[in-house]
Amino acid sequence: MKPVIAIVGAGAVGGYYGGRLAQHGFDVHFLFRSDYQSIRTSGLVVHSLDGDFTLSPDQIHAYRDPIEMPKADLVIVTLKTTANSQLQPLIAPLLKEQTLILTLQNGLGNEERLAELFGADRILGGLAFVCINRLPNGVIQHMDHGQIKLGEFVGPPRPRTHQITQWLSSAGLRCQALEDLRYGRWEKLVWNVPFNGLGAVLNRSTDLLIATTDGRELVRQLMLEVMATAASLGVDLPPNLPDIKIEQTRSMGAYKTSMQIDRQLGRPMEIDAILHKPLLCAQAGCVPTHYMQMLYEMATLPEA
Amino acid sequence: MKPVIAIVGAGAVGGYYGGRLAQHGFDVHFLFRSDYQSIRTSGLVVHSLDGDFTLSPDQIHAYRDPIEMPKADLVIVTLKTTANSQLQPLIAPLLKEQTLILTLQNGLGNEERLAELFGADRILGGLAFVCINRLPNGVIQHMDHGQIKLGEFVGPPRPRTHQITQWLSSAGLRCQALEDLRYGRWEKLVWNVPFNGLGAVLNRSTDLLIATTDGRELVRQLMLEVMATAASLGVDLPPNLPDIKIEQTRSMGAYKTSMQIDRQLGRPMEIDAILHKPLLCAQAGCVPTHYMQMLYEMATLPEA
Repeated sequence: MKPVIAIVGAGAVGGYYGGRLAQHGFDVHFLFRSDYQSIRTSGLVVHSLDGDFTLSPDQIHAYRDPIEMPKADLVIVTLKTTANSQLQPLIAPLLKEQTLILTLQNGLGNEERLAELFGADRILGGLAFVCINRLPNGVIQHMDHGQIKLGEFVGPPRPRTHQITQWLSSAGLRCQALEDLRYGRWEKLVWNVPFNGLGAVLNRSTDLLIATTDGRELVRQLMLEVMATAASLGVDLPPNLPDIKIEQTRSMGAYKTSMQIDRQLGRPMEIDAILHKPLLCAQAGCVPTHYMQMLYEMATLPEA
Repeated sequence: MKPVIAIVGAGAVGGYYGGRLAQHGFDVHFLFRSDYQSIRTSGLVVHSLDGDFTLSPDQIHAYRDPIEMPKADLVIVTLKTTANSQLQPLIAPLLKEQTLILTLQNGLGNEERLAELFGADRILGGLAFVCINRLPNGVIQHMDHGQIKLGEFVGPPRPRTHQITQWLSSAGLRCQALEDLRYGRWEKLVWNVPFNGLGAVLNRSTDLLIATTDGRELVRQLMLEVMATAASLGVDLPPNLPDIKIEQTRSMGAYKTSMQIDRQLGRPMEIDAILHKPLLCAQAGCVPTHYMQMLYEMATLPEA
């Protein structure tokens, strides 16, 4: 029997991954927020380097109220972390005894919050390594990468973990189960802290941040501080990770991170999940993190 | 006999101080750059909290070529430091045996450069603690403060040092001779590094930088690093200087530093004199200066 999958907070990431699952025959139900009307009118349109696709309005199960949605076997949370205060009312109506919850949100603290609300045993976390934006006309633009790494919030992979990776794989998505979810979280932060943080604060796309020796040094120092913080928590990342990440970033071209776009559009930025919670971990572990500290302080300044 | 005073690089600072001297009967000759035509047409118009004044086109000795200027007793250099490669051709024609050169330029390295070119003994340096901008219509807008502190490049004040302060004082300007010029240079850098640097990099006026606790912490950390660098050179600034400077900054309101305006207008920024040379001093003295380092790296990024 096909699982019922709910996508909570279907922006670019949720629309893309949920769309791929629906495209491959999964029973997917999308909880939209601001995009609901445009989806009812135009459907879900995805331009992707892995192949364009469209779900027409009558092919997509779109909702704006979770009360109207079926109970799910798997809830995939792609809500922006700045809306985490709404996790309870948005997710609770979707749950039955065995429902699993997989958060693909950015930064730290999301699994913990979901565990508080709904019990730790049903929580999984994942990282979406993907360059994706939603254009002003509602089209989802998938530009690069796309892999998902996911793991259990508590402990190593179980059969259900592999079941979920297999569902995603059968929708044509590259997916990998992590022995330790925290490893993936911190690996992703090594990229997100410098590129989301600096991108927003300095209003620069990723290519400009790594165009010069000084710029790469800036990015690298932030990465090293994130890695030192991870190490203080027992998460040892490979020493050459900054080089690998910077090299991967070259292929993205003039990519604007979500936080840069949020700032340009005057929307709330994921400062807490991406910049502040990692900094608090560093402080709790007495890790010297001057660049992270300065970046956080800059990110919180009032707008001009 | 009245001294002949030449103002080299008459932008906002040079126009204002030279204008005050001319207003009070001194024989002042201005070397203008981009503003020459508008000065010939409209004269020098100053709006100042200490009293507006105008020098009409026939009241002002305006030049665009130093060859046409008289030899000077005192050359006041207010050229932007990004044009320091032109110090030799702009100043050499103005010199006679006894000519003194007073640089009021920003940051580090200016007295040294002038000493290389024209001999150390005739060089003095000064700090203009002033909030001043030139508006797009050419009007000089003097908004706050205005004190000059000046000293000999080599050694303590001499009679000539006091002579110059007396000239400036007699033009209604607050002026003070410094026992050690380096003290003044570094005191001014304690303000200039955070406010010019962050103002340009983050495109924020001074009020926004100190509006929040995190913002003040950001400014304060930079100030403490500049002070530690100064201390490594034997220049001991008072520990409460950051509080004093931040308090003084409040009175300036929404002040845009010259470096912020330069960046907004796509003009060269004084990164070398204000951010890089102090950082090199820190590195030479093994002073840990993470915030200064990060600020410099951010300031050198390519524009979006």
